[in-house]
Amino acid sequence: MSSAVLSKRGLERFKTRHPWVYRSDTLSLPREVGIHPVEDDRGRVLGYALVNAQSEISVRVLTYWKEASVDTLIERVHAALDYRESLQPDADSYRLIHAEADELPALVVDKYQDYLVVQNGSAALEIYLDDLLQVLIDRVQPRGILGRFENKNRELEGLSTENVVLYGEVPETIECREADVRYLVNPYTGQKTGAFLDQRENRTLLGQHARGNGLDVFSYHGSFALHLAGKCDALECIDVSEEALKRAEENMQLNGFHHVTFTVANAFDRLRELERSGIRFDTISLDPPAFAKRRKDLEAAYGAYKELNLRCMKLLNPGGVLASSSCSFHVSDSDFYEMLGDAARDAGRRFRILDRRTQAPDHPEMLGVPETRYLKFALLQAMD
Amino acid sequence: MSSAVLSKRGLERFKTRHPWVYRSDTLSLPREVGIHPVEDDRGRVLGYALVNAQSEISVRVLTYWKEASVDTLIERVHAALDYRESLQPDADSYRLIHAEADELPALVVDKYQDYLVVQNGSAALEIYLDDLLQVLIDRVQPRGILGRFENKNRELEGLSTENVVLYGEVPETIECREADVRYLVNPYTGQKTGAFLDQRENRTLLGQHARGNGLDVFSYHGSFALHLAGKCDALECIDVSEEALKRAEENMQLNGFHHVTFTVANAFDRLRELERSGIRFDTISLDPPAFAKRRKDLEAAYGAYKELNLRCMKLLNPGGVLASSSCSFHVSDSDFYEMLGDAARDAGRRFRILDRRTQAPDHPEMLGVPETRYLKFALLQAMD
Repeated sequence: MSSAVLSKRGLERFKTRHPWVYRSDTLSLPREVGIHPVEDDRGRVLGYALVNAQSEISVRVLTYWKEASVDTLIERVHAALDYRESLQPDADSYRLIHAEADELPALVVDKYQDYLVVQNGSAALEIYLDDLLQVLIDRVQPRGILGRFENKNRELEGLSTENVVLYGEVPETIECREADVRYLVNPYTGQKTGAFLDQRENRTLLGQHARGNGLDVFSYHGSFALHLAGKCDALECIDVSEEALKRAEENMQLNGFHHVTFTVANAFDRLRELERSGIRFDTISLDPPAFAKRRKDLEAAYGAYKELNLRCMKLLNPGGVLASSSCSFHVSDSDFYEMLGDAARDAGRRFRILDRRTQAPDHPEMLGVPETRYLKFALLQAMD
Repeated sequence: MSSAVLSKRGLERFKTRHPWVYRSDTLSLPREVGIHPVEDDRGRVLGYALVNAQSEISVRVLTYWKEASVDTLIERVHAALDYRESLQPDADSYRLIHAEADELPALVVDKYQDYLVVQNGSAALEIYLDDLLQVLIDRVQPRGILGRFENKNRELEGLSTENVVLYGEVPETIECREADVRYLVNPYTGQKTGAFLDQRENRTLLGQHARGNGLDVFSYHGSFALHLAGKCDALECIDVSEEALKRAEENMQLNGFHHVTFTVANAFDRLRELERSGIRFDTISLDPPAFAKRRKDLEAAYGAYKELNLRCMKLLNPGGVLASSSCSFHVSDSDFYEMLGDAARDAGRRFRILDRRTQAPDHPEMLGVPETRYLKFALLQAMD
């Protein structure tokens, strides 16, 4: 059996226990995609990994000093499901498998009501995918499983990039429940696997603090807004996409909320307009897209986040609450809170931090794998 | 009325909205201690502050562009109490006033059952203390208030440093409730104002995850251990102080827990001993004292924290949970998680981060005032 042989630098990387080793940090790679031993240049077996010579991340480590096989992967699917059962989320839709953080590299499985949506970015793992799906079918008993495969990462791995129903049937629209609200998901076309499940618990938290006049900036399908609507006397949703706001409106109707207005607009422009108009708010959610998708975007992203937060801060009544999010991996925690501090200073306002959070615990973080932590969520209350 | 006049550097500091201005950043200061206007060198009034020329932190800003008086302070006591009422902590003992984070500089008030313990490190605020205590008496209706005044900061402010009962009667020992457990507090002699209330919600959280064989390192009065004892089959408490462990034992008896052992030992030594003995644990709490009390202690502190965490990680069974705390202000969040990553690597273990937390929300953080955030708490689960 051939092995992935690490270079000196690859060995250093391996020793940090980060599960990725790049092709450039290997000396040789087996041509066959699959689970293979990992060796140093003296032929010592260090562990086992998913190996794909064609991929830039050629080695995705599974085990250290222990053998790994498809059974290892099956055990880990069970462990991931056990962990989710221990969480008991107050929702019917949440993440079942979170890739590296569940020791199943590149594999993501989300549950939407009775359906599962799968993403996989490893050709080596794909070989065993049917065995893993069988565990999900047996334990979760879904009515259907969708492979959400239209993904550039899959192309780099040499995998098909067409969405495919892998089991049962999967409808175009699924009605899901999250705490007290219901919402519609398009598993074939929605962002990520259909919705932003990672903000689930942050939405519920903000719902507990919401009151008065509400504002939801970058509403998308209204996932934050739905949790504000039940508590706020009035609520405006802003998004640049008319199509997204149509779905937000459908979601509001589904929950019997008829006091919500929808503004199709660029958020920067609309916030300036609101400031001039003198309208003020008691509850604001600001959940912008990832402005810093690459490290070199960081400076521009910092400025954009700061401007948005500054404007929202100015729009808050005393005692009002701002929930500010950033999903840019390259914006660190300390960048994010520094940006918020800068914005507050320029807005001439002071804020108590009610909570600092990250993605929900069904999207866990792995210690020492920074890529598994990306979401920042600050719940701020204006002191004056 | 005389004013505190800021230097250029003081003005810069003031503009950051950090509430402290040092004596060295002022041009002149009123000799009378109390609430005074703050001016720039052209006589423009910028705000109002608690001013004490004798203190190194001479100016503690209360308001920006607005007048302040004792009524401002009284309003803020009301606001602090309103905020605590909104939190509804599952305990009868928690913080009512958290100094700068409640815009009441240098004032701390903790509630232990029906008693209050007050700390105050501002001579200017002390002038108005009776008025503020009256609000607490009216709204909280305590049976007694203790001034916990044996504090070096007070000496620097020119204030008395003797503990004094300010209202009613305050017993030597108070029995408090925290979620399902009861514990004894000595308001006159216990750490801080009697107990570490800032870890309250982290203790409750760990209690929810605790099981199997438990270990509590740096037990002090057993405040974490009490939440482990109800869930763990066996539990060992380690502390270097025999007196502290006696109180921990009393607290265990108070709750009817008789399966707990107490080891008077240096934690480093005892952890090494446990490792050699081959005993392994399912739940560990590690809550060391602040090793980095000054910035220059940081490197040594990093090493001490790392060694303790490394040893605890080695003692964990697969799937076991480690709750790791640091209350050193000078150890930043990123220092702390880097240290944990280093320790995990050296221990040859991988961990999922179940939660990252800080002090409980009754000890809120003020955005832009880094001194109001000091506690780090990581809940880690061993993956293998």
